[in-house]
Formats: sequence, structure tokens, C-alpha cells
Amino acid sequence: MTHFESLKQRLADVNALDSALGMMDWDQQTYMPRAGATARAQHAGILSRMSHETFVADETQNLLAKAKGDATSEDESALLRVVQREMDQKTKIPASLVEEKTSLGAIAHEDWIKARATDDFASFAPTLERMFDICRQEAEFLGYKDHIYDALTDLYEEGATKKGWDAMFSSVRQPLVDLVRRIKESGSQPDDKFLYGKWDASAQSEFTLTLAKAVGFDFNRGRQDTAPHPFCTGWSVNDIRLTTRYKDYLGSAIFGTLHEAGHGMYEQGSPQEWDLTPLAGGVSLGVHESQSRTWENIVGRSKSFWSMFLPQLKAKFPALPGVDLDTFYRAINKVEPTLIRVEADEVTYNLHVMVRFEVECAILTGELAVRDLPDFWNSKYEEYLGITPPNDAQGCLQDVHWSQGSVGYFPTYSMGNILSYQIWECLLRDLGDVDSLMASGNFAPILGWLQEKVYRAGRKYKPAELMTSVTGRALDPKPYLQGITAKYEEIYGLVVAV
Amino acid sequence: MTHFESLKQRLADVNALDSALGMMDWDQQTYMPRAGATARAQHAGILSRMSHETFVADETQNLLAKAKGDATSEDESALLRVVQREMDQKTKIPASLVEEKTSLGAIAHEDWIKARATDDFASFAPTLERMFDICRQEAEFLGYKDHIYDALTDLYEEGATKKGWDAMFSSVRQPLVDLVRRIKESGSQPDDKFLYGKWDASAQSEFTLTLAKAVGFDFNRGRQDTAPHPFCTGWSVNDIRLTTRYKDYLGSAIFGTLHEAGHGMYEQGSPQEWDLTPLAGGVSLGVHESQSRTWENIVGRSKSFWSMFLPQLKAKFPALPGVDLDTFYRAINKVEPTLIRVEADEVTYNLHVMVRFEVECAILTGELAVRDLPDFWNSKYEEYLGITPPNDAQGCLQDVHWSQGSVGYFPTYSMGNILSYQIWECLLRDLGDVDSLMASGNFAPILGWLQEKVYRAGRKYKPAELMTSVTGRALDPKPYLQGITAKYEEIYGLVVAV
Repeated sequence: MTHFESLKQRLADVNALDSALGMMDWDQQTYMPRAGATARAQHAGILSRMSHETFVADETQNLLAKAKGDATSEDESALLRVVQREMDQKTKIPASLVEEKTSLGAIAHEDWIKARATDDFASFAPTLERMFDICRQEAEFLGYKDHIYDALTDLYEEGATKKGWDAMFSSVRQPLVDLVRRIKESGSQPDDKFLYGKWDASAQSEFTLTLAKAVGFDFNRGRQDTAPHPFCTGWSVNDIRLTTRYKDYLGSAIFGTLHEAGHGMYEQGSPQEWDLTPLAGGVSLGVHESQSRTWENIVGRSKSFWSMFLPQLKAKFPALPGVDLDTFYRAINKVEPTLIRVEADEVTYNLHVMVRFEVECAILTGELAVRDLPDFWNSKYEEYLGITPPNDAQGCLQDVHWSQGSVGYFPTYSMGNILSYQIWECLLRDLGDVDSLMASGNFAPILGWLQEKVYRAGRKYKPAELMTSVTGRALDPKPYLQGITAKYEEIYGLVVAV
Repeated sequence: MTHFESLKQRLADVNALDSALGMMDWDQQTYMPRAGATARAQHAGILSRMSHETFVADETQNLLAKAKGDATSEDESALLRVVQREMDQKTKIPASLVEEKTSLGAIAHEDWIKARATDDFASFAPTLERMFDICRQEAEFLGYKDHIYDALTDLYEEGATKKGWDAMFSSVRQPLVDLVRRIKESGSQPDDKFLYGKWDASAQSEFTLTLAKAVGFDFNRGRQDTAPHPFCTGWSVNDIRLTTRYKDYLGSAIFGTLHEAGHGMYEQGSPQEWDLTPLAGGVSLGVHESQSRTWENIVGRSKSFWSMFLPQLKAKFPALPGVDLDTFYRAINKVEPTLIRVEADEVTYNLHVMVRFEVECAILTGELAVRDLPDFWNSKYEEYLGITPPNDAQGCLQDVHWSQGSVGYFPTYSMGNILSYQIWECLLRDLGDVDSLMASGNFAPILGWLQEKVYRAGRKYKPAELMTSVTGRALDPKPYLQGITAKYEEIYGLVVAV
């Protein structure tokens, strides 16, 4: 056996542990009885420590060093690069901290659920403080040049820095605020009341499965369940799990499913021969999000998409009034500052992200104490969105991320929004009349293009390399700003200044 | 930290790995998309090897030896005894064989599902042959005095041997065959056609949840899902998973749930302070089965039980005709030689087990080749039950066990049947008019008695010790034979020879 093969065997051990952790997390968010959380915390903590220890073990490090001489293909070199990057990160962090973070995450998830349900931030604050403290330690172990945020955000988006995110947000903040203002001033807010009701859960399940299947998510290699907070996970290119949720707003399930199916199709698109290796999966969270947002927004909130599916939707939900395509299209694209990020429209969405980014930076640096988070949050919502949450459940307790210690993650959502339009621009150039394809339910060419350009590359290239190879340039907010401006000027009949 | 505490920490690592394996198996049988099986096989194989290696590691063995000086309580000594027994077994088996067996089991499970669905034994035979070969190797590694079967069956039932099982079956074979004959000759077969229909799945789900809750399964610390072959599993006293299935025979779901809830209540009954340690859980498969059969048959097929629940059943299933309690009671206790073990009545059930026991012995010793299994099986069904399966799907392909390499396991089902009546006899002596309790839906005293006598002992005592402490004697078929004879003489109006 070559060193390379021995290394792959060690990595398979790590992969098995990580897959078990993935399943434990999936189960905790879908089916686990709440009393199971204490055991789950212990089990997940231990397995994450074992995964870490197996990965950073001297034997793995030696094999990694020696395997470099064995690599004979581009794929093998890429695998070694990915593993080396992870080794550089993980060897800096003690296994005990990894166990502590995972274990606390499983407990904190339950604390967060309770706190949100009872609108009791104070009860969650001590746990959250501990979690931010662990993240701060993690960042110090990892090290950084400019800002503590850099150490953490690089874990989710290779090469990202606070400075880079600042620049990204600066480039879109004013145009977005202006667009929101113009929309508000237009006074032509669409009526979307017909989308609210007591919708049958099994009808929502069936319809969302139809949609996910239609766009190309392969249910032979995956499934959909429900969770309080929709997510996508998986432990094999042949076993990808989507989740959605059924609420009074019919769009929750529909766009939740299309969003997660976007993540899922990206995961399912890795080459079979890379399954269970570090080359499979999405290259970064920003690129991942570009795909979920593509299928949710660019495809799923387009008029052509619904010219195909509105009749089916009406057949499935007889209580829906006889709205026409235009009315429906305007309704699902209503722009309005609201409280909940995951239900925000395309235009205001990034403003929600900015609030979280600022919160994270302020807490990490110590400028903001965790106990003062609600006030800070509420004042930022007033500043960016012109609304103040009536309570913390709809305010700073709404997201799952911080309970899991996912700090540095939020800006990738905005990157995904921006990148989705940048990639779509190239897809349009290659495929031409995509609207006709969507209107006829023919998503195969669209999925095929994305598979070829993005999905089948897995984690082989650095995110920046992939972006350049697909779009010819680095992250560029222009296509996004042009795209949403044109879309919403049309929907709201805004007069375009000449 | 004492050696004992260090040992417990090592065991917690093993427990985390085993819990992950339990969840992977649960997921494979409930939700996993079929294409996920290959990855599952690799992951489960690796984790089972890791669990084995962690357990048998020199460090664990040293800690176990040293911890004996630390044990200061009965519980601690019991824990060391349980671990020592497992150490004696596992140190004999190479980790590679453990990995191979688990990995093959995950693949074989899928092969078995396919073979059963298509009634294609030939396609499954090579996999089954490999699995029996692994079991044979396992037995040789473990060692045995009299018979190769002894090595394997002792893994499921401490102290059991082929000779012991032979004696147990001998003691019940003739009385059962006689009883079946007398029932047949009575010519008064009850009509149970009304129990067959296209029953609504969600009504079955709701009703079975009501039953499981009523008898005392704690849904705050567990849940119920569906699986092709009902089972109970769990990875914490606070996270126990039942499964059931919805079929045309309404009894499938009802008695499947009551059976698994019996297992589940046993698991939930371990003391909280033993959670995640080797002292928690059921002491052996035979004792475990005695509890599932108690709740399924002695409680769940009693007239008093249904005097409470028949009105609720009728309300839930309006299509059920207006049968009275007597008719219903006779229908759910219909005795008739049939093909499927898990749906067999109390009287013929053990005859199904005997067939499997003989098959296992014959294949292990080489007297029977796997390819000849269908013929052997069919001739045994003719001999014991007077019927011949029309195909292998309803014959030798019906059970999941062999695909998982669970060989030596089946006789514990018969032990459970026998022991359930032996324990119940003692319960009746202590509680008196149990029928009135059941008729009023008051199961707490029954569950309480079983918790105190059996469940809260966990794995602290040897099965034989526990049996003696609860019933005052070793396994004794008398209460079982007397119990079912009296019950079915009454139901079938059999003339009792004086």
C-alpha cells in the first residue's frame, strides 16, 4: 500500500466519525425526543474529539507528509491540498476544546429552542456567553493577522476576512437601502394575504417533493423531512437529507424546500469516485449558498417557473383563490422590511445579514457584552430596516447558528446572494432562453450546466479559483445589483431615472 | 482520578461509538434512502472496528484489571463483571472480523430486502453464505466445549447452550403440537376477517401511540416510527426508539407496537444514574423478550385490556363493524398454523422458532448447505405446522436476523414466551386482581411491579440470577403451558379430559 492509500484509509476513519456526527445532528433537529439531548451532547462531544484526534494524530501527519511524493494526478494533489489546509487548522486546536464545543452545542441547541419558545433571552445568555468564549479561544488558537473575525470566518469561506466582508457589504448597502426606499415610496405593495392559511401538512409535503424532484434533486439518493429550522446535510453523495417546514405562510415550505434542494443538488453533484473523501461536497459556504439561492430565488421566484407550477399548486391547495400568474408572482416577490431573516425577500435579506455580522464582530472583540445583545440587535434593525422586533424570539433568538458556535458564517449568505447572480449571468450567456426551459419544466439543461461548471468540481479548487474559472472574475456585486434592481423595478413599476 | 473512573471514561468512548452504530442501524431501517447503503456499510464497519479496538485496547484492559481494587459498591462490582465478560469475549475476536461483519451486515440488509421483495433466494444466497461463514469464524474464535452453537447463542443469552435450548424446546414441543391439534379438531375457528382492510395509516399511528402511552411508554423519552420489520432500539434511557408497521391486518400495528413498547419500557426502566454505562439496558435477549411478550400477549391480547380499548378502537376506525368484546377477543387470539413468525399466534409461535433453531444448527455444522435452505425450511414447516410456504419470501426470506449475522438469537424468543408467564404468575400473586386494573386502563401498578422487579435491575445481575430472584426458580415451562392451555381451552371451548 502506498502512503497515499494509507492516508486515504485514515481519512476514511475520520469520515466515518464525521458522518456519525452529521447523522446525530440531523436526528437532533428532526426526530430526537427532547429528553435525549444530554446523551446526545456526550456522544457528539466524544465523537468530535475522536475525529479530531484521529485527524491530527502523528500517524496521519506523517502519512500526509509522505503521501505528497505519491500523488500522481491533479485530483490526488488537490486532495492533499485540502487535507493539508485542514491539518494546518486542526493541529492548532486542542481536542478538548473541540469536544467541549460540540458537547455544548448539543445542549445549547435545546436551550435555544426553549428560550425562543418562551421568549426568554436571559435564560439563554449564559450558554451563549460560554459559546462565544469558546469561539474566541478557537480564534486565538487559530491565529490571525488583522482581526479576530478572520480566524473564524476562514473556516467557512477559505480566504475570507473581516475586511473583505466589510468591502462586500459596503458595495451593496447603499444600493439596497435606496431600492427598499424606492419600493416603499412606490406605494404599490402587492397583496399576498392569500398565501396565508391553515395549509394541510401532507399537501405541503407532497407539493414540495414534486418541486424538488422536478428541479432535479434525486430522491433515490436523498430524502426530505421536517425541522424547526430547515437545513441540508448528508454523509454520502448517495445519501443527502433535506428538511423543510410547514407554516401558515405557504411560501415557507415551498421556498424552504427549493433552497435546501439547491444545497442538496450541489452535494449530489460530486463525482461518485470522490464519495466519502475530502474532495466531495461544496467548496465553501458562500458558493454553497449561491446554489441554494439560485434555485430558491432566481429559478423559484421567477414568473416562468410559476407559469409551470401555479396550476399544480392550485390543484393541490383548493383553498387558494383563483389568482392569476402576475398576482402570484408579485405576491411571492413582495419586498418589505420584516423581522425574520429566513423569510426575508431578496432585497432586504442582506440587511439582516449585516446586523448579524456586526453583532459577531462586536461580541468577539468585547465591544458588546452578550447580555446587551437584544438592545444592540433591536437598534440595528431600526437602523437598517426601520423596524424594531417586539420581542427577542423574533429578534436576536431567531437563528440557530450561534447556539452551535457557528460564528463567522453569516456573511457567506450575502456572498451567496451576490454570487448566485454572477454565476447565473454566465449560465444565461451559454444557455440562452432559460425562461422557456423553466416555463416548460425542463430544468435538466440548467442543472446540467451547474453540475458541469460548479457541482462536479466538488472541493477540488479553492473557492476563488472556482469562481474565476466559472465567471472569469472574483466576487462582483454588479450582476446581483443589476439583476434585483431590474426585477423589482419591473414588479413595482418604478420609474427609472434617465 | 481513580482507575475505576478512568475505566468509565474509556467505556464512555465505546458507548459513544456504539450509540452512533445504533442510530445508523435505526436510520437504515426507518429513513435511509436505499442508495445510501454502500456508504452506510463503510461507516458502520469502521465505527464497529473502532469500538472493538477501543474496548480491547491494552489501556482498557489494564484499567479494568486495576479498577477491581477501586470498586466500593455492589453496582461498581457488577459493572466490572459485565465489562469483564465482554472483554473475555471481544479479546478473542479480531477487529477486522468485526468490521467485516458489520459492513457485510449493512449490505446484506439491502440484499435481503431486494431478495424478499422479488422472492429471489438465489440472489441472496451468496451473501448469506458469507455471513454464516463469518459467524462460524466468530464461533471458532470464541471457542466452545460441546457445540459450535454454544459460542454464538451465549452472546445473546448468557449461559445458554444448544443442549439447554434442546431441553427447552423438548419440554414444550409435544404439548404445543397437541394443543394445536385439539384446537384444529374443535372446528370452532373464530372469524377475524373484520380485522383486514385498507386501514388509514395516520389512524393506525394515532391509535398505537395512544396504546403505547396508556401502558406506560414515556414519549418524552422516546418515539415511534415505522420500519418494514418492527424493532426497538435506543442509545440512552432517555432516547428509546420504537418502530411499528401499517398493514392490511390491523393487528400488525397494534401488537407490533405493544410488543416493541414492552422492550422500550424495559429499556426506559434502567436507573438514570446508569445511563450510558454498561449497567443500563436489558440483561439478556430472553428476558427482554419476556417483557415484549408480556405487554403484547398477556396484557395486549387479554379480554380485560380490550374491554378498555375496543370502544376507542371502534371510534378511531369507523369502518370496523360493530363486533362485541367476545368476538373481538376471539379474533385476536385465533390459533392457526400460518407462514409468518412475527404474525403467529401465541400457540404456534414457538414452532416457528424451532424451525429457525434447527436451520442455524444445521448450517453452522455444515450439515445443511445455504443453497438447500429453502427445501429444508419448507419441509420443517410441513413437519411442525402442517403447511408449506408457497414461496421463499413467505418462507426462509421472511426474517431480518440472518442478514445481520444474528445467529443464535432465535431461541431467546421462545425463552421470552415461556418466561413471560413465569414472571406474570408472580406478578399476579403480588397484585391480585390485575384484570380489573387492565379493564380500567390502570397499568401503573403492573408497570411499577415490573420496573421494581426486573427493569430497574438493568444488567446488574446475571440473567439466571435475576430470574431466580424474581420467580424463585430457573426457567420453567409450566406456567406458560398452563397459561396458554387454560386460555385457549376457554376460547375454543375444548373439552378437558378428566
